[in-house]
Amino acid sequence: MPARRRLPWITLTTDLGSAYAAQMKAVLAHFVPPGHLVDLTHEIAPHRIDEAAFLLRAMARDFPAGTVHIVVVDPGVGGRRHPIAIRTSDGSTLVGPDNGVLWPLARSLGVRRAVRLDPARSYRPERVGTTFDGRDLFAPVAGRIARGARLAAFGPTIEPRRYEWPTCIRSSTGALGQILHIDRFGNLITNIPTEVVPTRAQRIDVRWRRRSFARLPWVTSYESLPSGKIGLLGSSFGYVEIAVPQGNAARRWRARVGERLSVKWSPARR
Amino acid sequence: MPARRRLPWITLTTDLGSAYAAQMKAVLAHFVPPGHLVDLTHEIAPHRIDEAAFLLRAMARDFPAGTVHIVVVDPGVGGRRHPIAIRTSDGSTLVGPDNGVLWPLARSLGVRRAVRLDPARSYRPERVGTTFDGRDLFAPVAGRIARGARLAAFGPTIEPRRYEWPTCIRSSTGALGQILHIDRFGNLITNIPTEVVPTRAQRIDVRWRRRSFARLPWVTSYESLPSGKIGLLGSSFGYVEIAVPQGNAARRWRARVGERLSVKWSPARR
Amino acid sequence: MPARRRLPWITLTTDLGSAYAAQMKAVLAHFVPPGHLVDLTHEIAPHRIDEAAFLLRAMARDFPAGTVHIVVVDPGVGGRRHPIAIRTSDGSTLVGPDNGVLWPLARSLGVRRAVRLDPARSYRPERVGTTFDGRDLFAPVAGRIARGARLAAFGPTIEPRRYEWPTCIRSSTGALGQILHIDRFGNLITNIPTEVVPTRAQRIDVRWRRRSFARLPWVTSYESLPSGKIGLLGSSFGYVEIAVPQGNAARRWRARVGERLSVKWSPARR
Repeated sequence: MPARRRLPWITLTTDLGSAYAAQMKAVLAHFVPPGHLVDLTHEIAPHRIDEAAFLLRAMARDFPAGTVHIVVVDPGVGGRRHPIAIRTSDGSTLVGPDNGVLWPLARSLGVRRAVRLDPARSYRPERVGTTFDGRDLFAPVAGRIARGARLAAFGPTIEPRRYEWPTCIRSSTGALGQILHIDRFGNLITNIPTEVVPTRAQRIDVRWRRRSFARLPWVTSYESLPSGKIGLLGSSFGYVEIAVPQGNAARRWRARVGERLSVKWSPARR
Repeated sequence: MPARRRLPWITLTTDLGSAYAAQMKAVLAHFVPPGHLVDLTHEIAPHRIDEAAFLLRAMARDFPAGTVHIVVVDPGVGGRRHPIAIRTSDGSTLVGPDNGVLWPLARSLGVRRAVRLDPARSYRPERVGTTFDGRDLFAPVAGRIARGARLAAFGPTIEPRRYEWPTCIRSSTGALGQILHIDRFGNLITNIPTEVVPTRAQRIDVRWRRRSFARLPWVTSYESLPSGKIGLLGSSFGYVEIAVPQGNAARRWRARVGERLSVKWSPARR
Repeated sequence: MPARRRLPWITLTTDLGSAYAAQMKAVLAHFVPPGHLVDLTHEIAPHRIDEAAFLLRAMARDFPAGTVHIVVVDPGVGGRRHPIAIRTSDGSTLVGPDNGVLWPLARSLGVRRAVRLDPARSYRPERVGTTFDGRDLFAPVAGRIARGARLAAFGPTIEPRRYEWPTCIRSSTGALGQILHIDRFGNLITNIPTEVVPTRAQRIDVRWRRRSFARLPWVTSYESLPSGKIGLLGSSFGYVEIAVPQGNAARRWRARVGERLSVKWSPARR
C-alpha cells in the first residue's frame, strides 16, 4: 500500500442486517487499514430497491469526493442482473447490483463510466458464490478500487440500468404523489418536492386512501404542531413529509411505502 | 489539517435510526479522516430525552479526554430550544440540543463553558434547515471543533439547561424510585443507587403498580437466580436492576420507562 | 504506543444491543487510536450461545491475521464460567466467556494457547463488577493485547470449553439436521453441509414438525425460484438453506433456531 496516499472511505448500505455485513467487513479489512469502513445502514427493508435507492442518494451524496460506496440490496443475486461498478464525476465509485438501486445517486453525482464486474477478474474467483455477491464480489472489488485499481480491470463498459422513483404530478393548486420512505419516527416522506408548495401555504388538504384530511397545518418545524396532531412540513430530504409530533403517523394509519396520496393547498391569499 | 496533532474521536448518540445518522457521517467525513467516527447508539426510544440523558452519561463518560460527543434526541428541533456546545473540564465537548439531554453527562464531567450555536456562524449557513440540526448544524460544528476551532467562534456563552433524572426517595428500610431504562434483555434499570441497599440485604420486597413481589432475592450475578425467576441486583450502571435471567421482565409485565416502584429490604439480621 | 507498529483491528460481537456495546468502546478508546474498532453485530438473540458461535465463526474467520475479537454472549457472567482469551494459530486473539461461544471459531483458526483471565491482573481491578465483564474485563484485556501485551500476563493456561453445534446425520439419500440460524430475510440456515447434497439433485423432500414438503426445488440462486415459493439452496454459510424469495420462511412457519428437520433428495438419475 503506498505510504503517502490517503485511502478513501468505504461505505456500506445493505438490507442484510449486521451479521452478513460483518462478513463483508472481514474481506474489506484485507484491503484498507482500520477506520476506513463506515456503516450507513444495514436496515433497508428487505428487497426494497425503491426505498434503498431513495435513502442511498440521501445518505451518500455528501460524502467526500473519491469515496467508495458498496450497496447490497440485491434480490436478484446469482441471477441475470449484472454486478457493476460506476465511477462518478467527482471520482467516487458505486459498487453493487445493476438493478437500479445505484442509479439515483449515480445520476445526482454524474456518471463518468460504468463497468460490468466479471467474476473471473475479481479477487479469488473460486470463492464467488451465487447467494452473497456482497461478500464474494463487491467487497473485494471495492477494496481493490479503494487501493487504486482501475475500473477497466474488472470488466467491460456497460450502460447501467436506470431507475427513478415515481415523480409526482403537479398542478397549480396541488400534487399527486406517493410515500417513498417511512422513517423511525413514523413520519411519511413523499415524492413531492418541498419547493412545489407555495411559501405562503398555510393549510393543506390531503386525500389518502378514501379519507380526506382537511386543512392540515403546513409548518416549518415539528414543534409548531400540537403534540399528537397531524401536519405537513418540508422534510430534511427535500420532500413533503406528513408527521405527527410525539406520535407515529405510519403506525396510526398503517401506512406503507408506495401508497399514493394527493395534496392540495389553499390558494395564496394576498 | 495539522500533520502531527492527533484528532479526537467523535461519537454519535441519536434516536434517529441508522439512515439519518448516515447523513451526519457524510458531513463529518469532510472534517476528520477515516476512523474518527464512533456510533454509540441510534436506537434511543424516539424523543425520550430522559432515557437518552441516562444512557449518554453511561456510554460517553469514560471516553478519553478531548472526545467530541454529538447527541441528537431533539423533538424541539427548529423551535425555541437552542442548539449548544458544552466544553467539559477534561476538554471534551458535547454538541446537541439544549433540552437537558446533555446535562447529566456534562455535570458528571464538569462544565467549563457552554455556548449557544449561532447558525449564521456555522458551516454553510444556507444549508441549515429546520428539521435536522444533527446534519445541518451539530455535525459541521463538531467537525470544526474536532479540528481545533474555539467554542467562542460559534456563539455567545449560555447557561445550559439542567436536567436531572428523578432521584429516589430513601428511607432506612427502603426506597421509592422509578424505571429509568429497559435494556435489550428486558431488565429494568431503576434510579435507586445500588449503594443504598445494605450489603447484608438478602431479600427485597417490591411494590409495583398494585402488585407486591414479596421477598425477592438480592443477588450479585444473574447466574445466582434460577432461570426465569425474578430477582434484584446491582446493575453495571450503578443502580438497582430488576431482572429475570433467561427471561424478559419488561415483556412479562409490559413495563415502561417512567413507572414508579418501591423497594423495601428486610432489616439486616445480626 | 510504539510509533511504527500497526495496531490490529478489534471486533465486537455481542447480544447486548448498541448502548452497552458503546460502554465497551469507551474503554477500548483508551488503548487504540480511532478506527480500530469494528462492530460485527450487537443483535445476537439474547443468550443464544449456539447461534452466536455459528455466526461468530462466519463473521470473524476471514479477518486479517492478528485481529482481536471480543465476544459478549454471556448469560453466566459473574458466575462459575471463566473469562478467557484464546490465541489462534494465525496470531489472532479471541476474548470472551468460556461458555463455548468462542470454540468453533477457535477450532477453525487453530488453537495455539488459552488463558483464564484473572481479574486481579486486569486493567483497574477495582472496577471489575459481576454483571458486565464485556466492559470491565474483556475490553481492557483486549485493548492491552492489541497493544502487544502477552497472553500469559493475564492468567494461567486453561483448556477452553469445547462446543460444537449439532452435526447432521447423513445417509446416502438424505440427512437429518436442524435449524442453526434464521437470517433477516427469514431464511432458515441448517446444519447440513451443502456438499452432502448431490450436485445432480433437483428436488428435495423436507419433513419438518409433522409436515411434509414434497419435491421442493433445489436451486443455485434465489432468483431461480418463483416469488413466494419455498425452495432450498446452498447458503453463503456453506450449509443448506430453506428460503422463500421475496417472502419470509421463518415468519410463515414461525420457525425457531434448534428445530429439527429431515431432507431427502431424489436418487440421481443417470
